[in-house]
Amino acid sequence: MTQRLVVIGGDAGGLTAAAQARKRRGPDDLEIIALERGRYASYSACGIPYRVGGEVSTVDDLVVRTPAEFKQQGIDVRLLAEAVELDLDRRAVTVRDLAAGTDYRLGFDQLVLATGAAPARPPLPGIDATGVHSVRTLDDGEAVRSTVEGGARRAVVVGGGYVGLEMAEAFARRGLSVTLVEAADRLMSTLDPDLAGLVARAIEGLGVHVRTGEPVREIATGPDGRVAAVVTSGGEIPADVVVLGLGVRPNTGLAEAAGLPLGRTGGLITDRRMRVTGADGGWADGVWAAGDCVQTFHRVSRAAVHVALGTHATKQGRVAGVNIGGGYATFPGVLGTAITKVCDLEVARTGLHEGEADQAGFRYVTATVESTTRAGYLPDPPAITVKLVAEKRSGRLLGAQIVGREGAAKRIDTLAVALWHDMTVEDIANLDLSYAPPFGPVWDPVLIAARKAWDAVTADPS
Amino acid sequence: MTQRLVVIGGDAGGLTAAAQARKRRGPDDLEIIALERGRYASYSACGIPYRVGGEVSTVDDLVVRTPAEFKQQGIDVRLLAEAVELDLDRRAVTVRDLAAGTDYRLGFDQLVLATGAAPARPPLPGIDATGVHSVRTLDDGEAVRSTVEGGARRAVVVGGGYVGLEMAEAFARRGLSVTLVEAADRLMSTLDPDLAGLVARAIEGLGVHVRTGEPVREIATGPDGRVAAVVTSGGEIPADVVVLGLGVRPNTGLAEAAGLPLGRTGGLITDRRMRVTGADGGWADGVWAAGDCVQTFHRVSRAAVHVALGTHATKQGRVAGVNIGGGYATFPGVLGTAITKVCDLEVARTGLHEGEADQAGFRYVTATVESTTRAGYLPDPPAITVKLVAEKRSGRLLGAQIVGREGAAKRIDTLAVALWHDMTVEDIANLDLSYAPPFGPVWDPVLIAARKAWDAVTADPS
Repeated sequence: MTQRLVVIGGDAGGLTAAAQARKRRGPDDLEIIALERGRYASYSACGIPYRVGGEVSTVDDLVVRTPAEFKQQGIDVRLLAEAVELDLDRRAVTVRDLAAGTDYRLGFDQLVLATGAAPARPPLPGIDATGVHSVRTLDDGEAVRSTVEGGARRAVVVGGGYVGLEMAEAFARRGLSVTLVEAADRLMSTLDPDLAGLVARAIEGLGVHVRTGEPVREIATGPDGRVAAVVTSGGEIPADVVVLGLGVRPNTGLAEAAGLPLGRTGGLITDRRMRVTGADGGWADGVWAAGDCVQTFHRVSRAAVHVALGTHATKQGRVAGVNIGGGYATFPGVLGTAITKVCDLEVARTGLHEGEADQAGFRYVTATVESTTRAGYLPDPPAITVKLVAEKRSGRLLGAQIVGREGAAKRIDTLAVALWHDMTVEDIANLDLSYAPPFGPVWDPVLIAARKAWDAVTADPS
Repeated sequence: MTQRLVVIGGDAGGLTAAAQARKRRGPDDLEIIALERGRYASYSACGIPYRVGGEVSTVDDLVVRTPAEFKQQGIDVRLLAEAVELDLDRRAVTVRDLAAGTDYRLGFDQLVLATGAAPARPPLPGIDATGVHSVRTLDDGEAVRSTVEGGARRAVVVGGGYVGLEMAEAFARRGLSVTLVEAADRLMSTLDPDLAGLVARAIEGLGVHVRTGEPVREIATGPDGRVAAVVTSGGEIPADVVVLGLGVRPNTGLAEAAGLPLGRTGGLITDRRMRVTGADGGWADGVWAAGDCVQTFHRVSRAAVHVALGTHATKQGRVAGVNIGGGYATFPGVLGTAITKVCDLEVARTGLHEGEADQAGFRYVTATVESTTRAGYLPDPPAITVKLVAEKRSGRLLGAQIVGREGAAKRIDTLAVALWHDMTVEDIANLDLSYAPPFGPVWDPVLIAARKAWDAVTADPS
């Protein structure tokens, strides 16, 4: 008899699961229906800043696969279809057709929860004013873009993390006057202050006004109900458009209401096969999850963490889909690897920075080196700064941060694989990495940093 | 009592050893004398093509540290000083002062053999004609350069490996008419034919005439004794300047004459601490070696190999120097990682390619993927081709090759670390690598290749 798989959430996690399950089970064996409450499914949300910045010409360019293409694969992707209730006992979802305004019930044998994450929206006066946007979905992105094209001249970005910086740059590219407001005393809390400072200078170099240590108190609105200004502890900043980049939270209301327990990060709890843990601590039979709605395992801190990134969502979706399809796959956890580009400055990290290492209880040394991504005797060698955090005594790598120009940031992957294997900085310094003058000095910056970190480890045997 | 360390060979391996020993032992404890038969010591030979090509303005830019700087460190670097005889029993070297034409003896307590490698020069008629150059030393490079500046218009490069390609590009940049001659049926034997073909097209795109399958028979000379043409099996190619890029052999005449055994590659045999193995199979007391004159261990094939690269030389020199200084360090072997850039095409490899895997007795699958180093929806995403070789059944990575444009080749380091740890392609596909649209698609090309390779492994369980 044909089983039915219902996928709630039509983006990276959910649709990768659907596609993988379909690869292994034909339509006569498994019917697949994916529900997406927005107007778009299967898209690159990471591309939104580049769409707003004018580098991506149509919104369709950001769509990886259309519902028509999924249809050909035998996957029924329904847009504007919101799962409003989940009944695990009766194994059914109540779906709201947002276009028709009607509800219907959909039974399932297997269920994938891929409800993603919701942007943090602090309960400030005026937060819901017209012109105040999050940038999680393509719909969000298109709304921001049309505000810009409608003549917005002054943008305020609230939050100095990846999304905030990328959006500030996008606005600056479009010629808007941009202010970036951050409540903490610095931008990029995902880096240590020394490296974050390099990023802050780059964004200021673009003409963006950076205001740190200024919590937002209110969004002031005009008589038309549109945003007029962002009011911070430091004063009022006039704004035609406001973007919130304050992080995200797992979107788990539906699952929680259905009785599924949440982890300490607020995300769904799964095992390595992406099976959702039920109220009794065992597998909630036939229920899987993937992507930004789940919490995962940090391989260095060994803590449960919530990391909302497309890379994890697609990998987890693949694992869930393989398992639903009758295969065997597991998700091995994350390192907290991340990368971005601000103007021509490349920024990356993996593992734990100093603050995170402190929090996880490690004692550590650090080493920071400045080098280049071409041999120094070639014209204009691009600068690179590499910082490593290594455990005291053992010398085990705990984390790495890189800021630099062309060719700098992707070196983080080398360190991510080293971290994956619990390498010591001594061993990292001996790795057989590639060298030729167009790519760096004979000792790659990564290796120099490892040597220097090892020196620091041996200098302090306490 | 003060001991004396004599280092034979004044480049990466020898002088890194000297500097590391000096860091740990003061001048009263250890006198250090380094002998270099050329006019330059401590330089980047890899920079020679860029010097010939005009990107490096003075030869001094390629010198890492001058003898005067070494002097300040308490290291006596002697130029034009050739070690012509080595007496291990009496622990003395006979040194020829090439400027004065006189010999003197120098006793030692510790000895580092860092005699490098010598370019292969087949015994062809005319091979020693004026205008036929190798490019191993700065002296070689300056000779080529002055020939070019003296008005040479037609260059022939013999050998289609890294050096040959880099020199062909350098000549082309200088406006010479360039022919690249290769005896084998294709360029870049360090890659499999499919990827090597991409490189051949790039060098042809520069206007270089590529002639493969044409062994050189003779160098024809003019009445002035200068090179006039390169005669191959395919005909005569007029030439004002000829460069040989036919690989290198360990330069071990001195050591062999002193009774030290050589390995199957012709290189000196050392243990992991870079102690030279003597005739009795034990440590030749107080004798160390580093760099292009030693053979080393390939971590994938487990065979003894000779890989003449500055990266290994500096690491081995460091290991020897730490140990001479009373510390403890070991050299863990190599993966055969290499990288180069031909025009705007980046080329890299690590581990074994198909031919090498065959030779090592592996059975394997391969996967080749074409992707981009920016998200496909951004303007002009640079192309990247990644090829993986993975062992059958186990799925263990055996090697990787990358050819592509901006941002492509340094991804080889990620695979080199994976290879270092015997990772399977299944596990590689789960690695937490960095992602943002300016750096690639959400599945990094490396991960896509690993997934595809794993599919190939599971598709053939025989």
